[in-house]
Amino acid sequence: MTVNIKRLNASQADFDSQLATLLAWDDSVDHQVNESVRHILHEVKTRGDKAVLEFTEKFDRLNVASVAELEMSQARLRQALKTIPEDQRVALQQAADRVRDYHERQDQKSWQYQDEDGTVLGQKVTPLDRAGLYVPGGKAAYPSSVLMNAIPAKVAGVAEVIMVVPTPDGVVNDLVLAAAAIAGVDRVFTVGGAQAVGALAYGTETIPAVDKIVGPGNIYVATAKREVFGTVGIDMIAGPSEILVICDGKTDPDWIAMDLFSQAEHDEQAQSILISPDADFLNAVETSINKLLPTMERADIIRTSMTDRAALIHVADLSEAAKVSNRIAPEHLELSVENPEALLEEIRHAGAIFMGRYTAEALGDYCAGPNHVLPTSGTARFSSPLGVYDFQKRSSIIGFSAKGADRMGRVASVLARGEGLTAHARSAEYRIKND
Amino acid sequence: MTVNIKRLNASQADFDSQLATLLAWDDSVDHQVNESVRHILHEVKTRGDKAVLEFTEKFDRLNVASVAELEMSQARLRQALKTIPEDQRVALQQAADRVRDYHERQDQKSWQYQDEDGTVLGQKVTPLDRAGLYVPGGKAAYPSSVLMNAIPAKVAGVAEVIMVVPTPDGVVNDLVLAAAAIAGVDRVFTVGGAQAVGALAYGTETIPAVDKIVGPGNIYVATAKREVFGTVGIDMIAGPSEILVICDGKTDPDWIAMDLFSQAEHDEQAQSILISPDADFLNAVETSINKLLPTMERADIIRTSMTDRAALIHVADLSEAAKVSNRIAPEHLELSVENPEALLEEIRHAGAIFMGRYTAEALGDYCAGPNHVLPTSGTARFSSPLGVYDFQKRSSIIGFSAKGADRMGRVASVLARGEGLTAHARSAEYRIKND
Repeated sequence: MTVNIKRLNASQADFDSQLATLLAWDDSVDHQVNESVRHILHEVKTRGDKAVLEFTEKFDRLNVASVAELEMSQARLRQALKTIPEDQRVALQQAADRVRDYHERQDQKSWQYQDEDGTVLGQKVTPLDRAGLYVPGGKAAYPSSVLMNAIPAKVAGVAEVIMVVPTPDGVVNDLVLAAAAIAGVDRVFTVGGAQAVGALAYGTETIPAVDKIVGPGNIYVATAKREVFGTVGIDMIAGPSEILVICDGKTDPDWIAMDLFSQAEHDEQAQSILISPDADFLNAVETSINKLLPTMERADIIRTSMTDRAALIHVADLSEAAKVSNRIAPEHLELSVENPEALLEEIRHAGAIFMGRYTAEALGDYCAGPNHVLPTSGTARFSSPLGVYDFQKRSSIIGFSAKGADRMGRVASVLARGEGLTAHARSAEYRIKND
Repeated sequence: MTVNIKRLNASQADFDSQLATLLAWDDSVDHQVNESVRHILHEVKTRGDKAVLEFTEKFDRLNVASVAELEMSQARLRQALKTIPEDQRVALQQAADRVRDYHERQDQKSWQYQDEDGTVLGQKVTPLDRAGLYVPGGKAAYPSSVLMNAIPAKVAGVAEVIMVVPTPDGVVNDLVLAAAAIAGVDRVFTVGGAQAVGALAYGTETIPAVDKIVGPGNIYVATAKREVFGTVGIDMIAGPSEILVICDGKTDPDWIAMDLFSQAEHDEQAQSILISPDADFLNAVETSINKLLPTMERADIIRTSMTDRAALIHVADLSEAAKVSNRIAPEHLELSVENPEALLEEIRHAGAIFMGRYTAEALGDYCAGPNHVLPTSGTARFSSPLGVYDFQKRSSIIGFSAKGADRMGRVASVLARGEGLTAHARSAEYRIKND
């Protein structure tokens, strides 16, 4: 059964609207999910631990007497680290080291300077006190996600990283716990869903309130995060994952087909797009796709994703490919070309850019160093990968000297009176010298 | 008529709950506003210019034939700059220069490094293509707000800053237009409300879509911004403005009273809090408040704000004051003490910190240099002043050498197989050398 992949050509008159249709993604909210989430959040906010216990019994079938029993000890995390196979332990550790090394370069420092009046201006950078990390249970339980979310928080200096992870029917994922041990997660509660988000946002008798909640989750988790935004900070609400590969036609078509698969295997809504100025190469990759697909473990998911959402786009040259890419603002962008540095100059928006034929996107998912939490659905136009900066905040520092307060007080006075705010004006005028 | 200001004492057993009550702020959404905003956004999204014209006629009573007629020329902005009084023009220019100078220090640079395998890792920093700036019309039309929102965008390198400002009945504020001229705003449309937010988010035939919308607005504007978040970026949804003053009791009580007024005069919901270890000083400030209030132009607003939301808090010492301040995470924090540097060490959360007796908060609103768009309602726990960083985004750069792809491909392969994602594994394995 051949996969039919959409073909687009940038020279066609209706290319823009075809591209818009390809990228369209329905993120409309589900009314029933909304209602259910609001109810759960309200219960957790007002009844704390009791509500958390009830929802955990209802949704995860865990019957315990107290939320304290849902906390996992550091000893249990260390035990998981010992239990997992040697090669996985080593690989997790190597990945964590590279991720930490990269993120340490994102650390921001406080700064200040003095102007000619002796007035001090600056910015004080401080970590969040406490961060919450949501980790999905079940089949989407990814240890790499624990590393990518927890390590930047710890590098930022967050004193307490609190992880929540559902364990339906008590099923625990030792790889996830091992990753938590390696990443330095401080506390772990086996609670999930909107009730976990509520507990982290409002705090309960046992689970402390955090300042920001990060990490992926299903529609209930995403809706709950959107709902508590403002009470706490949140990371992005992620759409389906996407990859855009720009290839000059000189990379092994099997490699490119597999790179597209690596995105498509995430879920049926994932999107894989290939752009090339070489029409024969597009055909060759399609042949590779059909050859390799039957050999894939997750062939059904890949087939649906490729049929519904993939595309092969023919362009006149690499410059046009860059233009199309900038319209898409992809989450992952592979520049599988001879001279990726030259093409990089033309790229304005992308979550992460994978340079050259050797840089498989999958390397970035696990162990390259940069974060794998990236802006989806075109939001790379205005947002950034998860980073240390997401776990720090800034305070402006203003310290006027008597001379500076005299000089700038006069400016403030004029502007405040221009805006009709005379208390502002008089407050500044008190600090003006009477000569 | 004496103002009755709440008194709290940090040594009281129920201080925590009293403080929580004082800070409580109802930001629940208004269902009717929501419905109305959704309707307006849908119309603008689907009918573009036509809908913008209809809503502008309906809400602002402007009857024009095309949206092009609602655009204000650069010549008109320059004319406004010539029209306003000399002292205001000079003050605006001085404020803009200081704001620009401060924000230039926030500019972030791209960086990259090579590891021992010759693999390149880094981060590319790029400006947003286009930013939208909402400026309220009517009494809350503040030229300082134009400077504070537009200058960081231009410093960041945003190519096009598009301002929208309602002009009900055609009433134009020349100070606002002059500020736009000074700040380098590229285009101005006299459109307001949810219809302006919709036009900036989705684009119309005449108004181009932007990547991020910033700037203050009423409940309709705030609701519309929340609604289009995801399609475009937005700045914070601001709550009422607040000031927290920590004073050792040695500052002139009239100065402190006026500093509290400068926040209270914004609107009835604004919050002004004074903390001091000196009970006599709290009494002295209350005396100053009652003495000065009758002399204030905006006495009615100040009286309501002070009665409903202000507080004088007595603490044991300055360290306890810092602890209370960290619980509040204030938007504006004045350290009106002998040694503000020492106290600063203990401050963990605040939008902007005003150091010493000479640094009136009002100076920061206009011309100190740092931004006056600050996190409100305790969100300084996890967010920052508006800055150049809000108009830039980052892309991760990953360029593996053949050697690096070989070494790290093995790590990725183990981890991907551990997660059951075999397309990821095989994509990495293609780049491993066959020895």
